[in-house]
Amino acid sequence: MSRPVAIIGGTGAMGRGLAARLALAGVEVVIGSRDAARGASVAAALTEELGADAAAITGTDNATAGAAPVVVLAVPFDGFEANLDSIAETATRSIIVSMVNPLAFDRRGAYPIMIEEGSIAEHIAGRFPEARVVSAFNTVAAPVLGALDRPVDEDILVAGDDPDAVDLVVDLADRIAGARGVAVGALRLSMVLESLTPVLIGVNKRYRTHAGVRFSRLEIS
Amino acid sequence: MSRPVAIIGGTGAMGRGLAARLALAGVEVVIGSRDAARGASVAAALTEELGADAAAITGTDNATAGAAPVVVLAVPFDGFEANLDSIAETATRSIIVSMVNPLAFDRRGAYPIMIEEGSIAEHIAGRFPEARVVSAFNTVAAPVLGALDRPVDEDILVAGDDPDAVDLVVDLADRIAGARGVAVGALRLSMVLESLTPVLIGVNKRYRTHAGVRFSRLEIS
Repeated sequence: MSRPVAIIGGTGAMGRGLAARLALAGVEVVIGSRDAARGASVAAALTEELGADAAAITGTDNATAGAAPVVVLAVPFDGFEANLDSIAETATRSIIVSMVNPLAFDRRGAYPIMIEEGSIAEHIAGRFPEARVVSAFNTVAAPVLGALDRPVDEDILVAGDDPDAVDLVVDLADRIAGARGVAVGALRLSMVLESLTPVLIGVNKRYRTHAGVRFSRLEIS
Repeated sequence: MSRPVAIIGGTGAMGRGLAARLALAGVEVVIGSRDAARGASVAAALTEELGADAAAITGTDNATAGAAPVVVLAVPFDGFEANLDSIAETATRSIIVSMVNPLAFDRRGAYPIMIEEGSIAEHIAGRFPEARVVSAFNTVAAPVLGALDRPVDEDILVAGDDPDAVDLVVDLADRIAGARGVAVGALRLSMVLESLTPVLIGVNKRYRTHAGVRFSRLEIS
């Protein structure tokens, strides 16, 4: 893949895991951080960990990373708006991939939070009217992405209104070892993808696992 | 299983499919219909179709069926409230299992409809404060249930606040050939289960299949 993929929040566990998986699949990665030096330092550590077989990983500040053609928001719900602010000038015409899941916890577990626009992805689409926004990777857990010795045994659900952007993200997902990209439909279905994590957390708690989502009876040729 | 399961809307494709699957698993079924004669006629047809290996299937009107210890609402979103009305006097202390998915269609496909109480299941819980309400079977499609020559190759997601009721429905799901019951958490997660069908419809449209949901990395002993 000739286009580099930028990962905003690339220094967190989720971002690092996704960066490693993509680089191992031959996709060049730019790690964005609030602090450019921190981005560069995490990129250097990942480069050393992954060895010569991986594609290049570099690090920079979020605003610079936001100018990449594909920008993944691998940030938690808390504070995601500040991360959007950081790419507001640069990602205006990017493909923006949101992994953000609006959820909260109380003593009964995790539950989805309602978003005025329907979903975080649609909120982002409202802020970035010329960008092409896609939801993806919402249901994959950081420990699963980070366990590089094991394939990511799950489907990556992809929702978006721009067919080319959706296809590109499905292709990115397909490159990750063990994963499969599945286009599920329009961006307005993002609320479903964004609300699945509380269900997975419930399953994980009950059965002590890190469950992923797979579709049965789905053969993609 | 000693307790019969009543299926409100048991004369529709979804209800007939579930009735057949349960009866083949040895679970006695009562089919409820607005018209008792129609319920009895569908029950007789199913009994003949399934043969001597299946448990008993009988038919009656919805109100009578609603007195069963376990009452499954296998009805579409349109008109579900009238179906609730029909069991309002009888299902007051039943385990009520909602398969109802609030969705609508336009030229862009299917999409979830927001419910004031959060979900249909929570709406039902509000109307039936002494019943134990559980969401389940939301993601299984009528043609899949109805294809009796093939196992139901998917997980049945079960949400509810009463642990005994959840366990009972998980056990019911486990009895269906090829299916596996998975307890996902509290009733407030019903909105996630109820909104998955538009995603499955999107997948089915794109890839021309009848996809189901499976959890990966989930071994239930």
